[in-house]
Order: sequence, then C-alpha cells, then structure tokens
Amino acid sequence: MPYVKIEVTREGVTKQQKQALIKGITDLITDVLNKDPHLTHVVIREIDLDDWGYAGEQVSALRAKGITADKK
Amino acid sequence: MPYVKIEVTREGVTKQQKQALIKGITDLITDVLNKDPHLTHVVIREIDLDDWGYAGEQVSALRAKGITADKK
Amino acid sequence: MPYVKIEVTREGVTKQQKQALIKGITDLITDVLNKDPHLTHVVIREIDLDDWGYAGEQVSALRAKGITADKK
Amino acid sequence: MPYVKIEVTREGVTKQQKQALIKGITDLITDVLNKDPHLTHVVIREIDLDDWGYAGEQVSALRAKGITADKK
Amino acid sequence: MPYVKIEVTREGVTKQQKQALIKGITDLITDVLNKDPHLTHVVIREIDLDDWGYAGEQVSALRAKGITADKK
Amino acid sequence: MPYVKIEVTREGVTKQQKQALIKGITDLITDVLNKDPHLTHVVIREIDLDDWGYAGEQVSALRAKGITADKK
Repeated sequence: MPYVKIEVTREGVTKQQKQALIKGITDLITDVLNKDPHLTHVVIREIDLDDWGYAGEQVSALRAKGITADKK
Repeated sequence: MPYVKIEVTREGVTKQQKQALIKGITDLITDVLNKDPHLTHVVIREIDLDDWGYAGEQVSALRAKGITADKK
Repeated sequence: MPYVKIEVTREGVTKQQKQALIKGITDLITDVLNKDPHLTHVVIREIDLDDWGYAGEQVSALRAKGITADKK
Repeated sequence: MPYVKIEVTREGVTKQQKQALIKGITDLITDVLNKDPHLTHVVIREIDLDDWGYAGEQVSALRAKGITADKK
Repeated sequence: MPYVKIEVTREGVTKQQKQALIKGITDLITDVLNKDPHLTHVVIREIDLDDWGYAGEQVSALRAKGITADKK
Repeated sequence: MPYVKIEVTREGVTKQQKQALIKGITDLITDVLNKDPHLTHVVIREIDLDDWGYAGEQVSALRAKGITADKK
C-alpha cells in the first residue's frame, strides 16, 4: 500500500513528464518492494514560485537573479 | 488536536459534498475519540487528473478509457 | 481515488478506535462521493505530545496544566 | 535537512507576507537547530475557504457569519 | 526544488530497499525534470499495519486474512 | 487557520528546541498574518537518517562520511 507525493516548483512541467514520473515511480516501487501496482498511488503537486522558499528566499526571487534548479 | 487531510481527484466535487465530508469527519472524530470539535481541522485538496497516478497511469488516461472510481 | 491522512496526538488511541475511524471515513467517502472503497486509503499518524504545538505551546505542557482536548 | 509545510486559508496573503514567513522560519530553524539554510525548504499552501473545515463547518460559512481567524 | 514523500506499510523494508528507492526516485527526477539532485529530498515513512486502512479495513486485519499487497 | 508541519532528521532535537520552534513559528504567523494563535497548530516530525534521502543518498550514509547539515 504505497502512497507517493511529489512536490515540484511550477515551471512548465508537461503532461508527458508527469506521466513519466508516475510510471517511473510506480515501476520502481514494484521492482524494489514487490508491490502490486494497483495499490500504488502517486500525487504530483506543482508549487508556485512565490510559495516555495529555499535558503530563506522565495524561488521567484532566486529565478529573477538567474539562479536555477537545473542539473549542472 | 486532530488534523485531517483529504485528497481526491478533481471531478466536480460540490461545495455541499465538501461540507458533508467536513461535518461527517469532525463528528466521527468527536464520537470515536471524544475530541472537542473546536480542535479539529479538516483540509480538502482536489487533485487534477493529470497529477494523480494509479497503477502507473495518469487518472486522466484511465478516465479516457472509461475507467472510473465509482462504487460498483 | 481518495487518500486521507489523520493526525492525532498520541494519547492512548486503541486499535478499535483506529478501525472505527478507518471504517467511518471510508463509508463517508463512499456515501458522499460515490467512490469505490477499494480506491480509498486512510493513514493514521499519532504524534507525540512534545511534537504537537497549539497556541505556541507543546501539548505536553498543556496537559501538565490540566488542559485537555476532550469534548466539553 | 528540514522541510516545512505551511497551510493557511486563502485570504489575501501577499507575496511580501509569504517572503516574511519563509525568511522567518528559515532563520528560526538556523538559530534553534543550527542547520545550514541551504538545506531548508519551506512550502506554503493556500487553501480555499470551502476546502478548510473547522469545528465541522466550512471556513467560508464561518466567514459569512462574521467569524474571523484574526488575533483578538 | 523537488520534495518527495513515500508512505509504505511497515513490513520489513530494509535499509538497502530504502536506499534503492531514494536513488531511483532522485535519478528519475533528474532525468525527467533535469533537476540538480542537490535540491531533491526524499522522505520515507513506514506506517504500522493498524494505522493504514484500505477499503475500510486495517491492513493488519487484511494480512491476518492472508490478503497481501504483493505483485501478482 | 494555519497548520504547520516541520520535518527534520532525528539527530537529538531536544524538547526545549521543539518548544522554541513551536513558539517561534506561532509568533511569526501571529505577527505576519495577524492570526489568532488558538487557531495555529504546529506538528514536528523527526525522520530517521535511513529514511531521509538527499542528492540520492541516505542521510545515514552522508553522516558516515562526515557530511553534516550544520550551518557553516
């Protein structure tokens, strides 16, 4: 009975990316824990940039300074 | 001091249904745990169908195939 | 696809009370939203009294003063 | 590695108030727990008044009766 | 800035399985969303079987009847 | 009606530190949002080091390498 919640900043996540996350996490849990996928639920929540704080600053402020969360 | 979070797919839940959930859960907790209802908070979150995954698929895809969550 | 999380202070909630909460909430959601109960998951979390704060105080401190969460 | 979630009713919280919450909580955690702020994330969620229940009633209904959450 | 919470029933999940979930999810998010893994946090919560309800019953009761969550 | 959840790694957080977090956050919310503190609940959750992943690794593994979350 797994339940997974993913929170990410709202920065253009596409329907296809969401599907890839849902499929990937469900498969991972099936592989690692041997769980029936019909008991696995995944919920994605996109968070507005004003509503996520990192190191004391709104992500909207970080992005305005050119600071991204992209893989280097 | 109970706090309850309900997550449901966003599929036309009405204001009256939300009120019925809030009243029903608060009464249940009062009855079962003898809690003062003034200390019980209930938060409802509706989740877009692209953002809920079940058995590795987006609920939007399941609904497009005619698969519902309705009671049989 | 409902998911429900209940957080309550850890003050002797019994297995029977937990079962009553799980049954009551699942039935409520089935009745109000017409959801298949096989898609409803309920998770209960008991929180230690030092870990729940109300009005700026730990519940352990409130209980030591004789302040309860009981229904009046 | 702290993560903080704040849920408040959606009643006109400004961008500046959100920044004050993010800064204040991050500083508090740095001071109290000596944590590197670059490991502290804060997520704010505003909840519609129909979606928050208190004492068995929707906050939208409480507000319609003139009952607020303001400090007395 | 992703944050992921995984809730699973407490049924002997090993340290190695937890590491595989953490690594797998972080890699998935890096691949799908191109996020810097140093901004991805994953939190696993094991839930006692009396505290997880499915279809109105405690998982402890389901397991006593021989009903598992194993992949078929 | 604010509700705040704090998740931190379980690394010796004292009862006094928890009280300081609860008091500090409740006061902050009262100051910034003008909320009645009797409507503010704060829940602290300590997470075992095997159960928190950062950058794809368990925090227990990071700590074994001497990597801390302390403020520099």
